[in-house]
Amino acid sequence: MNLLQDDIIAAIATPVGEGAISVIRVSGVGSIEKVNSIFLGKAKLKDAKTHTIHYGNITSKNDEIIDDVLVSVFRNPNSYTGEDSVEISSHASTIIVKRIIEELVKMGIRLAEPGEFTKRAFLNGKLDLAQAEAVADVINSRTEASLRGARNQLDGMLSQKINSLRKELIGATSLIELELDFAEEDLEFVSKDKVVNEIQNIINEIRTLLATYSFGRVLRDGVNVAIVGRPNVGKSSLLNYILKESRAIVSEIPGTTRDVIREEVSIDGVLFKLFDTAGIRLAEDEVEKEGIKRSREAVKNSDVVILIDEVVNGIPKELYNELTELVGENRIIKVLNKVDLKDRLLSSRDSQRRIEAPNNNSIPEDKNEASIHSKERSYSATLANKDKKRLSKGLSTDIQISVKENIGIDKLLELLKEKSLGSNTFTEKSAVINNVRHFDALTKANDNLKEAIVSLNYNLSGEFISVNLRAAEDSLGEIIGKVTTDDILNNIFDNFCIGK
Amino acid sequence: MNLLQDDIIAAIATPVGEGAISVIRVSGVGSIEKVNSIFLGKAKLKDAKTHTIHYGNITSKNDEIIDDVLVSVFRNPNSYTGEDSVEISSHASTIIVKRIIEELVKMGIRLAEPGEFTKRAFLNGKLDLAQAEAVADVINSRTEASLRGARNQLDGMLSQKINSLRKELIGATSLIELELDFAEEDLEFVSKDKVVNEIQNIINEIRTLLATYSFGRVLRDGVNVAIVGRPNVGKSSLLNYILKESRAIVSEIPGTTRDVIREEVSIDGVLFKLFDTAGIRLAEDEVEKEGIKRSREAVKNSDVVILIDEVVNGIPKELYNELTELVGENRIIKVLNKVDLKDRLLSSRDSQRRIEAPNNNSIPEDKNEASIHSKERSYSATLANKDKKRLSKGLSTDIQISVKENIGIDKLLELLKEKSLGSNTFTEKSAVINNVRHFDALTKANDNLKEAIVSLNYNLSGEFISVNLRAAEDSLGEIIGKVTTDDILNNIFDNFCIGK
Repeated sequence: MNLLQDDIIAAIATPVGEGAISVIRVSGVGSIEKVNSIFLGKAKLKDAKTHTIHYGNITSKNDEIIDDVLVSVFRNPNSYTGEDSVEISSHASTIIVKRIIEELVKMGIRLAEPGEFTKRAFLNGKLDLAQAEAVADVINSRTEASLRGARNQLDGMLSQKINSLRKELIGATSLIELELDFAEEDLEFVSKDKVVNEIQNIINEIRTLLATYSFGRVLRDGVNVAIVGRPNVGKSSLLNYILKESRAIVSEIPGTTRDVIREEVSIDGVLFKLFDTAGIRLAEDEVEKEGIKRSREAVKNSDVVILIDEVVNGIPKELYNELTELVGENRIIKVLNKVDLKDRLLSSRDSQRRIEAPNNNSIPEDKNEASIHSKERSYSATLANKDKKRLSKGLSTDIQISVKENIGIDKLLELLKEKSLGSNTFTEKSAVINNVRHFDALTKANDNLKEAIVSLNYNLSGEFISVNLRAAEDSLGEIIGKVTTDDILNNIFDNFCIGK
Repeated sequence: MNLLQDDIIAAIATPVGEGAISVIRVSGVGSIEKVNSIFLGKAKLKDAKTHTIHYGNITSKNDEIIDDVLVSVFRNPNSYTGEDSVEISSHASTIIVKRIIEELVKMGIRLAEPGEFTKRAFLNGKLDLAQAEAVADVINSRTEASLRGARNQLDGMLSQKINSLRKELIGATSLIELELDFAEEDLEFVSKDKVVNEIQNIINEIRTLLATYSFGRVLRDGVNVAIVGRPNVGKSSLLNYILKESRAIVSEIPGTTRDVIREEVSIDGVLFKLFDTAGIRLAEDEVEKEGIKRSREAVKNSDVVILIDEVVNGIPKELYNELTELVGENRIIKVLNKVDLKDRLLSSRDSQRRIEAPNNNSIPEDKNEASIHSKERSYSATLANKDKKRLSKGLSTDIQISVKENIGIDKLLELLKEKSLGSNTFTEKSAVINNVRHFDALTKANDNLKEAIVSLNYNLSGEFISVNLRAAEDSLGEIIGKVTTDDILNNIFDNFCIGK
């Protein structure tokens, strides 16, 4: 693994596009000397102190000036990677960057792989693995809450927790193994209850961590919300209303969804990815197999489903049953829209009276309002004839709203947050896990610790117990990279962007 | 104008998008102290030396860590703007950048306008105006040749030339004005010929510069090439072939062209913007006024037009006449495609013989080839009947090619370069102008100098001459910003990107 670090790597570290400055990162033993050889400035980079900036020209082999740049020098171990490093700050131009990198490559410097700078930082002990993973989360965070969560992990909040659990576990293990070592001397195993207690404590803490997973994941990745309902019950209006109301609209990720209209919105710092299933023919007649399959997938992958219909219709039973099969009851919020019409209906006699005897001081009723009332009357008739039964025998409703009149929307958003974040009291200031790799490792640790307790209770040989405890220790170690494999590392850093 | 510099400005200087690092620039008196107040690191920024880098956290007012960053400190006058400046290098995340900028704004720091850093650099004498303009050209350059041209201007090649012309002009002016001062003492005007000579020299040099304009513009902006022709004569194939053959394909600029397919390609470092007029109904029956208008505009704006047809058809006269009205004869390259068919035609008797008596050693003729030959025969028949006359009385052709067989394409590209760059021998290493503002200023200077010579030859009063010489001096001064107005400055810097 260390062989990897024997060469010098380079990559553009800033996004590509229109801007003023591009930064090229170069890292590895000898990197300062190499860049020095294509740099023409007042000072020589190879004599430069760490954390100093030098103005000059980057030149090509035939002494042509490629660009005037600022070069920052970082000396081992005081750099991001822990190695000698250089950052070249040039004018933001893809051609300049390309030409400078070409010059670097000519000198035997290699293009960095995705995440390779952070990987080196990890290998050189500048960051542990959970922190290294948080670097990508920080960069990718799209809301303030997700940023805070990622920052806390980068600052070591999770790592500290794991380290302390691991320390406790090592303590328990050594008690057991001490017993093993002295077994032949028939040393009394006085500490069994103590060990069981300690392990149980660790299990409890691991469970607390595991319980933060859905919260952490939501914090990091956002909440997928499907808005489902029959045509013309107000799906799009609800979506648009939420988008308009929320303070910070997060722009759509290009290319992630093609068939489903998806909008992203940050509500109290949590990213909600709302999609209107306008194109989804759930429980409809038309048989478009591929379309239905895709729609079902989308609904299946959503964390919360808003099932919406009109008050006069009630919640459509067939659609509801279909949804419960896909996502389970708990994830569905049953919403009835157009509650304003119902309210007006109930007070329609009053309204009529108002129309017939307008207040002397009042502005004359305008035509539109009169026409609304007349619509309501015919609506009322329809209701009387067709929908009365439905209203009475409908499914229970979670909330009644009116998108048009802004009734109940705030409550709906509260419900949405509750459903997705859970009613737990985690904050981003606790140690939180948001990563399936961490979840799996903790689950494995938990399983091994439970087995260890069973073995202890059955008074099995210390060797059995030790194996479980060591395995749990390794699982915890995997999270922070104390125990790792090339596969784990590659999986992690392949998902980074170039230059990080 | 200097009032502008009394506040502190800030902006993101790196492109927005996926990457590892974002850089926020802050500049102005007191900027280091302001950033220091939200920075938590080992060292205090306010005590930091110029050109040093400091690791620490940027925190919000309530001491929440926004991100861990590297802060570079530059002290007046040793910075890009010439003022105290700070660059904050954070993780590349729009949220982090937004939050840091929010903290800066809370402290009374203002968001920078486009180009404002460079404008301050100009106002503080770090760059002259022609150099400042070159900064934008460097950033926007899309080929190596355009980059070299822009770099030369940024390095002061044009400015030196203008400065030396201006110095010569001031010399001539002072001779005239000396004469004016001593006029009453009847000092003999011995130096008239000398002055005429000197002015004539300056005129010659200005003309040389003016002559570089089309070359410089092409170098900077690239060459617009329209490929025009009747349907199915090989327009798209030619376009695709050139794109495939050229070493560096430059990606399309999004949103610049909607109706016309445009591709960019770098041939020997020069950017060619090729567009296929597939949608253009030039000289066709259909009356789609708006479409035709747009197409005519596109052709009119092109530097070179490739008019293409098939060898058997010859150059279509009507279309050619229409094009000459739009762009003039000189800008049209008349190309006949499918010369391979003509060649095959001429050797078709040989081919037939081959089909009839295949070589014993050879692989049997495949069906496709046979079918090609049979097509040729019928093609030949068509030619005989319909197109013979056309071939004989066609317009002269610049080049015959075959896209299919790669005949003549290299020669066509040579012709394309010749037509667009001219046959002149400018290189990017001469002082070159590429900017309409410079062109206009030089033209004005030229006109004034010509008038001055006329006045001298008519022995007019020195005052007349002096007015012209002073005006020419000012025009030259405008190029490098010795003479400037707010309008000129705003025009220039409004076209910059934010953060530069």
